[in-house]
Amino acid sequence: MVVKVYGPAYASPKRVLVCLVEKDIDFETVPVNLFTGENKTPEFLKLQPFGSVPVIQDGDFTLFESRAIIRYYAEKYKSQGTDLLGKTIEEEGLVNQWLEVEAHIFEPPVFNLVQQIMFSPYFGLTGDEKVIKESEEKLAKVLDVYEDRLSKSKYLAGDFFSLADLSHLGFTDYLVGPCGKGYMIKDRKHVSAWWDDITSRPSWKKVIETYGVPF
Amino acid sequence: MVVKVYGPAYASPKRVLVCLVEKDIDFETVPVNLFTGENKTPEFLKLQPFGSVPVIQDGDFTLFESRAIIRYYAEKYKSQGTDLLGKTIEEEGLVNQWLEVEAHIFEPPVFNLVQQIMFSPYFGLTGDEKVIKESEEKLAKVLDVYEDRLSKSKYLAGDFFSLADLSHLGFTDYLVGPCGKGYMIKDRKHVSAWWDDITSRPSWKKVIETYGVPF
Repeated sequence: MVVKVYGPAYASPKRVLVCLVEKDIDFETVPVNLFTGENKTPEFLKLQPFGSVPVIQDGDFTLFESRAIIRYYAEKYKSQGTDLLGKTIEEEGLVNQWLEVEAHIFEPPVFNLVQQIMFSPYFGLTGDEKVIKESEEKLAKVLDVYEDRLSKSKYLAGDFFSLADLSHLGFTDYLVGPCGKGYMIKDRKHVSAWWDDITSRPSWKKVIETYGVPF
Repeated sequence: MVVKVYGPAYASPKRVLVCLVEKDIDFETVPVNLFTGENKTPEFLKLQPFGSVPVIQDGDFTLFESRAIIRYYAEKYKSQGTDLLGKTIEEEGLVNQWLEVEAHIFEPPVFNLVQQIMFSPYFGLTGDEKVIKESEEKLAKVLDVYEDRLSKSKYLAGDFFSLADLSHLGFTDYLVGPCGKGYMIKDRKHVSAWWDDITSRPSWKKVIETYGVPF
């Protein structure tokens, strides 16, 4: 059974795509255009009642929320492809801890920067300079903690690549590319080495070359 | 070894406390006063570099982020106390899905309401009426999806109480109590029955009676 992934062009679904490639799981993608409201049709809302992507369908099993989906596949195919959860339950705890940090502490300021710098011009709007400044200051403090952490272990949860690392790829790629904030990564030695490492993985290269950005 | 939980008076740490009670795990608590900045001391930042609660210490293992901690204990003591993850890997997937919904879709508008209605007066400020109105509208739509979901299964992830349900307790208790928004729950038949059910569990009663609110 081939896994069906809805909305591959966007940043959150890319978590799922990278995970599936790392785990050697076959999948096909179904485009969903958020700009024309394809995510708000009655048919789509039956799959995902909040109208977000990604959603996966795997036989008759449907699951949404990108971080729930990657946990599901990392656990279900634990011994196939790259192990993305660590070897012990404590390592898995740390993977989950840094996944939560990514979700609640790292992503919010990055999302604000992406919205103000990358998406606003697309809609003919000017980004809010105050929000940009505050978000950059907030993100700088978060990245200082990452710098310290990554000076002690090669990856966020320890010396193994995990869901916690791959979960950063989509939005950080926007930050470094279209947002022009790559110096926030490059200026921090260990964060920079980590970013070079995780973006050079074949899984990410394949996903970014195949699915690009939403516009 | 008794688990040490930092910051028991606040809403997020209560996820951990309820989970530990449900799993029959002994713990002790260490008060951390966020209002006087005890979470920003160098000593505390060594435990939790972002200065948030909760943090747990379990022997020489330290873990932060409430939802990572409850996943750790639910998995580590899977067959002790209440099973909070479901019986199959698909059920666990749904537990994780609704935990993510709680974190990313449910909590943000509730948090805004708590901040504007409950915390602002404490600091001598008046809550922002616009934020209150927008947050209530947003939350109403989320609760409509919950109403539909809970008309089909007794709990969020299925017909079993799980981490996804207990994760709502702390902030929803503020919403219903100090924020005076209990009608948002009561006006929805299935959400109301679910709320009555999960708040009548001995674990929640014990936690709320013992640790109360932060002021």
